[in-house]
Amino acid sequence: MTAERPKVVIVGAGFGGLTAVQSLARVPVDVTIIDRHNYHYFQPLLYQVATAALSPADIAWPIRGILRRQKNTAVLLADVTGIDADARMVHAGSVTIPYDYLVLATGATHSYFGHPEWASVAPGLKQIEDATSIRRKVLLAFEHAELTEDHDEQRRLLTFVVVGGGPTGVEMAGAIAEVAHHALPSEFRRIDPHAARVILIEAGPRLLPAFPEDLSAYARQALERMGVEVRTLARVTSCDETGVDLEETRIDAGTIIWAAGVVASPAAEWLGAERDRAGRVMVGPDLKVPGRPEIFVIGDTAAAADATGKPVPGIAPAAKQMGRYVAEVIASKVEDKTPPGPFRYRHQGDLATIGRKAAVVKLKSIHLTGFIGWLFWGFAHVYFLIGLRNRAVVAFSWLWNYLTYQRGARLIVDSPAAQTMARNEKIRPLPGSVEASHGPGRDQARSDRADWR
Amino acid sequence: MTAERPKVVIVGAGFGGLTAVQSLARVPVDVTIIDRHNYHYFQPLLYQVATAALSPADIAWPIRGILRRQKNTAVLLADVTGIDADARMVHAGSVTIPYDYLVLATGATHSYFGHPEWASVAPGLKQIEDATSIRRKVLLAFEHAELTEDHDEQRRLLTFVVVGGGPTGVEMAGAIAEVAHHALPSEFRRIDPHAARVILIEAGPRLLPAFPEDLSAYARQALERMGVEVRTLARVTSCDETGVDLEETRIDAGTIIWAAGVVASPAAEWLGAERDRAGRVMVGPDLKVPGRPEIFVIGDTAAAADATGKPVPGIAPAAKQMGRYVAEVIASKVEDKTPPGPFRYRHQGDLATIGRKAAVVKLKSIHLTGFIGWLFWGFAHVYFLIGLRNRAVVAFSWLWNYLTYQRGARLIVDSPAAQTMARNEKIRPLPGSVEASHGPGRDQARSDRADWR
Repeated sequence: MTAERPKVVIVGAGFGGLTAVQSLARVPVDVTIIDRHNYHYFQPLLYQVATAALSPADIAWPIRGILRRQKNTAVLLADVTGIDADARMVHAGSVTIPYDYLVLATGATHSYFGHPEWASVAPGLKQIEDATSIRRKVLLAFEHAELTEDHDEQRRLLTFVVVGGGPTGVEMAGAIAEVAHHALPSEFRRIDPHAARVILIEAGPRLLPAFPEDLSAYARQALERMGVEVRTLARVTSCDETGVDLEETRIDAGTIIWAAGVVASPAAEWLGAERDRAGRVMVGPDLKVPGRPEIFVIGDTAAAADATGKPVPGIAPAAKQMGRYVAEVIASKVEDKTPPGPFRYRHQGDLATIGRKAAVVKLKSIHLTGFIGWLFWGFAHVYFLIGLRNRAVVAFSWLWNYLTYQRGARLIVDSPAAQTMARNEKIRPLPGSVEASHGPGRDQARSDRADWR
Repeated sequence: MTAERPKVVIVGAGFGGLTAVQSLARVPVDVTIIDRHNYHYFQPLLYQVATAALSPADIAWPIRGILRRQKNTAVLLADVTGIDADARMVHAGSVTIPYDYLVLATGATHSYFGHPEWASVAPGLKQIEDATSIRRKVLLAFEHAELTEDHDEQRRLLTFVVVGGGPTGVEMAGAIAEVAHHALPSEFRRIDPHAARVILIEAGPRLLPAFPEDLSAYARQALERMGVEVRTLARVTSCDETGVDLEETRIDAGTIIWAAGVVASPAAEWLGAERDRAGRVMVGPDLKVPGRPEIFVIGDTAAAADATGKPVPGIAPAAKQMGRYVAEVIASKVEDKTPPGPFRYRHQGDLATIGRKAAVVKLKSIHLTGFIGWLFWGFAHVYFLIGLRNRAVVAFSWLWNYLTYQRGARLIVDSPAAQTMARNEKIRPLPGSVEASHGPGRDQARSDRADWR
């Protein structure tokens, strides 16, 4: 490495950014990758962390570890605060990083369609922290329900609403139903987790709109067989701490999970660049920002069109292909070779899992469902994990869950859980006196004195 | 279960409490176990979570899961706030739980010898949250050091002080040295993790005072071979955010870990009972609180003497034996049988690990060290884990760490890490202008412009 080599700065170590970095391994440039986290994570399995099947470390890898042998690359844990495109500088608080080429791969976050106040009551699932906080919320709902004697409140706590019928919503709804109906029933004495309701709300006419209709129909059937209530053509008009309002009805719920919309990270704002309605930067056919030939935007942050004119979808394989492509463009510049033609997206297929022995897979003209689809989904996901260790641990955890119905990662951590419960801040006031506040369990006769048992 | 059966309430699901519950499985009583967490965890391996070798879920199990087949038992997630011994009631906020027999197994926490203000700068290692927060602190020290250009600050950030030379202190010091000297060196570009200093401070004349002298001496040698600086007969007189003061010297350090003292949980206060200097409840030979034949105190919360008059040590096997014993006493009362004699503690041995291929084991007259000791330690700990799943995952993770020197759980989560770094709140102000704040790495020539690379 000499000071003369071009500096490539990549912001974001998701699928797009990390692939770009790795594709530059043998190019004579100095790469700096900046991320807010010290890890890259496998977002397609985040819902399994949220539903206690996997631990965060099973689906995440330290970025430094992944890149430790890539000598032309430095990793920087920092939060980018702005870009000075004229001076070619990335600002991360008091730290400034100069670049010759800049790749923005900062991803997307939840969109609440103009209602940011819903975020606190209806968390989305984009980050590891989102997953552990949803896990905490779901598990605490059962704990709170076990503790309260108010039957309406119990019913509310055991109602889980998932908003959004895309792959994340379908996977979350299926996984919560499995937790409630298979993993937990033998563990509670006063409530029956079987009675938990899981409601999946989709504004459009069918689940998984990106999939063919037969697979959408299968997904709905499979979810309903698992006890999930599916409501299509249903629009959420408001969310609060005790439930959601649809256009014509209200659902009292203890847990609301938001899987409905995404909005791009503020890369367009940093650049003052043109953006689409979802906040994504409008990029040219070579993924460059118009007027800034040294700045690329890839992944969920980019509004890109394929060479054929079709919009590139916001999924992991697309982000990876874009990362590989911009590395090629940069390499061709640096090594003074012919640049590649415009970006071409190759769609490999669509996968979504529903639950135990149920998934939908579309590969070109092949449609798979049921056990075969589920096996395909499982092998594909294990294959795309990074490193032998996590593949082994995830495969083992899945086999274990499959055989035992148990979930290994059911911890409520970093939570003021118990305190909150004991001090009764989150559960509604219990009827009756302070002392005599607890009724008998469902398999116990009511004794004279109403106490804990 | 009928309302007539005696009610046993057990507070705390650590080794003592959980063993007591399990030993009551076939006794005709109704058991309620209350814990602040929804999980039981294996405290002897907490330091491995703190040093990124294992994930929290590898050493923790949902209490409900462990007890799901034990039909006479209910689990309550709540924080006990007091006990009304005359009315035989446990208070947990607004919830009140009546008992006929009460077992207090609430454990211990760190003691800062009258300096509670040290807690914020020198975290101890008792809870899962402590372990993830120490992990975050240790990993961020390396990240901050990579980012700063101030060489004194870098040296300070790469200095780790562990206070207390008992098993936890020895294990933490060894594990941090392994992280710094084996797992991380290839991953940083500007700092050399090899240069990290790990300093273990012990007030007494030797490490592991509970072990025979030859094993203490071996532990010291093994740590020193791993690059740990051991300072015995050294007393900490103050701790602050930038380091520790000993009687005659000051050590600037970025991370201080407290493994020096413990104090019992407030069970004695709840009872208004006589306590010893460490806050433990003085119990009789049958582990009962004097004057309260229906209240037992066990584990680290109890100051108990063996039938032979020797104090019972605050270790897991002792807590388990006490748990089993009180279950026997309660069963004898309930079933109207002869009660067992006074509690007899059987000491099975002492184990502590130091690092890769180094541990000390004392079993009666057998002393093991080195690779053999390490293997014995590993097998013993895997054996004592609960459930096949966690045994398999822990054994696999250890094998993996052993073969690759990599640590699988190196995530910095739930942290304002990046923000803190970028906003420069925790690292000292960098010299030079805002823009030109970063010097070249250790293997790079200094360029004209002082920037990130």
